[in-house]
Amino acid sequence: MKKIILTGDRPSGPLHLGHYVGSLKNRLAMQQEYQQYLIIADVQALSANAENPEKVRENVLQVMLDYLAVGIDPAVSTIFLQSLVPEIAELTIYFLNLVTVARLQRNPTVKEEIRQKGFGASVPAGFFMHPVSQAADITFVKADIVPVGEDQLPLIEQCCEIVRSFNRIYAPVFPEPQGIVPKQGARLMGLDGKAKMSKSLGNAISLCDSADDIQKKVMSMYTDPNHLRVADPGEVEGNMVFSYLDIFDSNVAEVEELKAQYRAGGLGDVAIKRRLNTVLQELIGPIRDRRNEFAKDPVAVMQLLKQGTERAREAAAKTMIEVRRAMRIDYF
Amino acid sequence: MKKIILTGDRPSGPLHLGHYVGSLKNRLAMQQEYQQYLIIADVQALSANAENPEKVRENVLQVMLDYLAVGIDPAVSTIFLQSLVPEIAELTIYFLNLVTVARLQRNPTVKEEIRQKGFGASVPAGFFMHPVSQAADITFVKADIVPVGEDQLPLIEQCCEIVRSFNRIYAPVFPEPQGIVPKQGARLMGLDGKAKMSKSLGNAISLCDSADDIQKKVMSMYTDPNHLRVADPGEVEGNMVFSYLDIFDSNVAEVEELKAQYRAGGLGDVAIKRRLNTVLQELIGPIRDRRNEFAKDPVAVMQLLKQGTERAREAAAKTMIEVRRAMRIDYF
Repeated sequence: MKKIILTGDRPSGPLHLGHYVGSLKNRLAMQQEYQQYLIIADVQALSANAENPEKVRENVLQVMLDYLAVGIDPAVSTIFLQSLVPEIAELTIYFLNLVTVARLQRNPTVKEEIRQKGFGASVPAGFFMHPVSQAADITFVKADIVPVGEDQLPLIEQCCEIVRSFNRIYAPVFPEPQGIVPKQGARLMGLDGKAKMSKSLGNAISLCDSADDIQKKVMSMYTDPNHLRVADPGEVEGNMVFSYLDIFDSNVAEVEELKAQYRAGGLGDVAIKRRLNTVLQELIGPIRDRRNEFAKDPVAVMQLLKQGTERAREAAAKTMIEVRRAMRIDYF
Repeated sequence: MKKIILTGDRPSGPLHLGHYVGSLKNRLAMQQEYQQYLIIADVQALSANAENPEKVRENVLQVMLDYLAVGIDPAVSTIFLQSLVPEIAELTIYFLNLVTVARLQRNPTVKEEIRQKGFGASVPAGFFMHPVSQAADITFVKADIVPVGEDQLPLIEQCCEIVRSFNRIYAPVFPEPQGIVPKQGARLMGLDGKAKMSKSLGNAISLCDSADDIQKKVMSMYTDPNHLRVADPGEVEGNMVFSYLDIFDSNVAEVEELKAQYRAGGLGDVAIKRRLNTVLQELIGPIRDRRNEFAKDPVAVMQLLKQGTERAREAAAKTMIEVRRAMRIDYF
């Protein structure tokens, strides 16, 4: 039997190159070999956007379009909408009994996210409990593998703790999921080189950006601030253009040659940016074309999401039968 | 249209005289005038008994028998099981976004319950969030009225805050419920006079106690520790036998006369205890008989619970349609 993967995104904005490198590419590579579930986590997105549900709703379609555009096949991978699988809410409620408040307060991922969003003590309880609802996302499909960023490994550890508690107290219903950090480029730095790529930081190239936008963004990228004249020697390390070329340019030999030239002096920023622009246009162009094609019929796209959600609910129903039996709440 | 009441019990033990005085009697009085929902809160019971689900399961039937025994009519009042209404879990998850962790930490009812159960920092997250799941219990049936003990008024306040947030952010879906504290005897003191009646404190008379048990318990009741000889004058205040006579003995004039005699001296504890025993046997005897009758066919009793749960789910489905529309998660 194929191993089961759970992965997905919060619909809080269109996906960008960081998502492509960090997760979408891997999902494409894995969709045949594994049984892959892709969650569009709208409930989770609402926990940080409770006052802005329209934004979440709009982005559900956008994320769906991004998935289809990069080549995720909804007949092979099960793409589903979190809010339409109420079993996840049920499981979350039961899991909450197996975790202490103190344990949640110590979770490094939650701590960091609370800090980043500036919540302080006024963190919404729903946000505070993400690790528990994510454990429900993962376990309701009995996922074996969860691809994550390094910073999210504590969430998987938390999930495993919950699984062990549940299996010990009630019955061995769930496998312990394994968190897998993709080897290269899991964290694509932003165009400014300051932090990882993020739409809210304004340092991202979206998969739906126009050719013009991409060009403008590439031309504005952070290179070596001391590399003022073409003739000057320049730094390659920390130079975002070379970082990106390392990731996106398949001609490794030529890139190494360019690095040598740049270090020696005599290679201008504009030249390397043009090369990166060409590489990215070739990558994103076909994705954008497919995206535009799908975007013509949003109803059909949402229908695909509906079908995936129905498949996810079948898995959820099966799991809940076992959960109810184990918890002795299988009354009727 | 009839006003809607939500009330109920955690199935953590058979109900006792404290429940009868504090809530069951009122429910009987109200079941015709109001549309009454009675929740058997097994999910909530599990949050403090996660490791002991069998106990919760057994007590579901016990509570159901107690309800039927005191005269709650399942055709008139809707008795339902919390774990079989997953919409409550869904609503809880959405409500959690509208409450901060700091606000929950300040909730006096939760604080006190955490203290009582000795949880400290290791309070399960599920227990910590009771006020939110209770808000879901109350609102999914759009309850107007929630009968509560004085100590639980902060839970209703919390619910109202959540309702106001939800109605303001999304759409005016829910009424603000009103917490009503029954006038007399809302808190029946225990047989020992030390705290309110509670099975876990061993100071309770259960509605299913045998005639012998009742007699033994009454004979052991706390009176006036300085009232050593029949001829001595005795204290009436703080004397549990007189407290109970005040509540359960309908002959007020005779009870006042007994009090006067007791104060003056010349009335023994055994005499007043015998009187109380007679009164309580007359009250509980018919309840126990009806209980034994229903207990002969537990399958039929659970069937009544199933039917009530189905009615509750109809209400839940209607509410969730409105909730989903308001929250813009009404996708398909």
